[in-house]
Amino acid sequence: MAVAIEKLVVVGVGLIGASFALALRKAGAVRKVVGVGRSRANLEHALFAGAIDETAPDAGTAAIGADFVLVATPVAAMAEAFAGLATRLPRGAVVTDGGSTKRSVIEAARASLGPRFDQFVPAHPVAGSDESGAVAASAGLYRGREVILTPLAETLPEAVERVRGAWQACGARVTEMGPAEHDAVLAAVSHLPHLLSFALVRELTARADAAGLLAHAGAGFRDVSRLAASNPEMWRDICLANRDALLGELRRYQAELARLGAALEQSDGEALERAFAAARAARRAWTAQGEE
Amino acid sequence: MAVAIEKLVVVGVGLIGASFALALRKAGAVRKVVGVGRSRANLEHALFAGAIDETAPDAGTAAIGADFVLVATPVAAMAEAFAGLATRLPRGAVVTDGGSTKRSVIEAARASLGPRFDQFVPAHPVAGSDESGAVAASAGLYRGREVILTPLAETLPEAVERVRGAWQACGARVTEMGPAEHDAVLAAVSHLPHLLSFALVRELTARADAAGLLAHAGAGFRDVSRLAASNPEMWRDICLANRDALLGELRRYQAELARLGAALEQSDGEALERAFAAARAARRAWTAQGEE
Repeated sequence: MAVAIEKLVVVGVGLIGASFALALRKAGAVRKVVGVGRSRANLEHALFAGAIDETAPDAGTAAIGADFVLVATPVAAMAEAFAGLATRLPRGAVVTDGGSTKRSVIEAARASLGPRFDQFVPAHPVAGSDESGAVAASAGLYRGREVILTPLAETLPEAVERVRGAWQACGARVTEMGPAEHDAVLAAVSHLPHLLSFALVRELTARADAAGLLAHAGAGFRDVSRLAASNPEMWRDICLANRDALLGELRRYQAELARLGAALEQSDGEALERAFAAARAARRAWTAQGEE
Repeated sequence: MAVAIEKLVVVGVGLIGASFALALRKAGAVRKVVGVGRSRANLEHALFAGAIDETAPDAGTAAIGADFVLVATPVAAMAEAFAGLATRLPRGAVVTDGGSTKRSVIEAARASLGPRFDQFVPAHPVAGSDESGAVAASAGLYRGREVILTPLAETLPEAVERVRGAWQACGARVTEMGPAEHDAVLAAVSHLPHLLSFALVRELTARADAAGLLAHAGAGFRDVSRLAASNPEMWRDICLANRDALLGELRRYQAELARLGAALEQSDGEALERAFAAARAARRAWTAQGEE
């Protein structure tokens, strides 16, 4: 086992943080896990589930003697976590995060970690779910999933290797890209789909006859609406943190919807069928690559 | 068993038609099944799978001596099927369909079936899938699913009861509503979600960097894009047949997206979180009702 963590600190012991701890434990890669979080009930659950061994009142206190820290709070709360770590994090320890956007997290880390910034390896485990909290965590969450690292010029190579090894020990497939590229790609394939799903459910269910409509909703609605069950605070933060890229994706999508709407208005069956056939071919090619 | 069908004719032996035949067979409710279809390969598969016993060259020929007919072609092809049935359908036989829109199908049936129109019971099994063809059929497809009947003033009550009994024998939950209400409800909970999914995949995959984007797509993209694998011809027909209701739903959705886009542009986190939280609560209430 290349990864040997003596003291792991998890700041934000939700689905992402608790699953990381459980996976490392299962791999025999960690000795002690300390959890930091806002919700006492959630921490109790994490203790009960064996994800963490003890709790600490804040990130700074927990960081004393730590050799590995995962910050897995909603992205807007990460600045506070980094500030807490700044003065107490031992030289030689590494810090990573589980945020779905990378540029805003990197800015916060740069501003707060000071001389410890080179020990920080930005990461995004692409393993979200509409479930949340330690109660939803599992040691298998990362098995076969992608974790994207976005290290910077100043990031210590040995920190990147330790973080890579830890995610690999969780069963993840680790890739690397630049932070801006990450945010652009994720705006298209993850953040926009979430926004579309929230919009569908929000619009339908704000109506007076919502109950009558939903009583007849079937598998089609179920699929497109599933992401609307996701954590509102987490997704508010992601939208704000990746605002410009997401707005760009939203504009493109709105233009596509307008094109399809025009074809429909003109009863242009050929244009509709062409668009649907192109989509079907692409979706089937994607699943054939084993992505589903 | 209240349903005893001597000779069932299935016009369009795809997912819907072949599954209907398999389910009735499993329930011991049918003696002989005759299939009519465009694709020889598909009919061969239906024969091989035991969904049908024999084939006929057209709906009219098949209708001779039939006591139950299911028309399960794409909705735009139903007019031709009804015209074929018009002169050969025995008095006392019933006809139903599996179309996802009802007003256009009823118009076609009224225009083509003539004096046999009172034997037609419009139906919509809400059990679609992104799979299609006899190869995807199963006897269990309708178990627990809703089938909506939209009978008219002139529909014979005994025909409604026979059709209801047949769908119930397939394990379905049968409900009734008016054709206009059906089309309005389904535009909101099914046709719009399909259009949104097609639009997402179409827009993304028309880009030069589509492959690079899709390589990082995960569970969020998977859910929202699943419907884009649906049959393009079938969905072209549904969109055109239910054009006005679907356009109305599309306009409402576009307005909602514009509202969310404005909140995002203004970095109005409170408005975003409020919309997301409302959507999440509604989605969770829906699944709690056992719809998922």
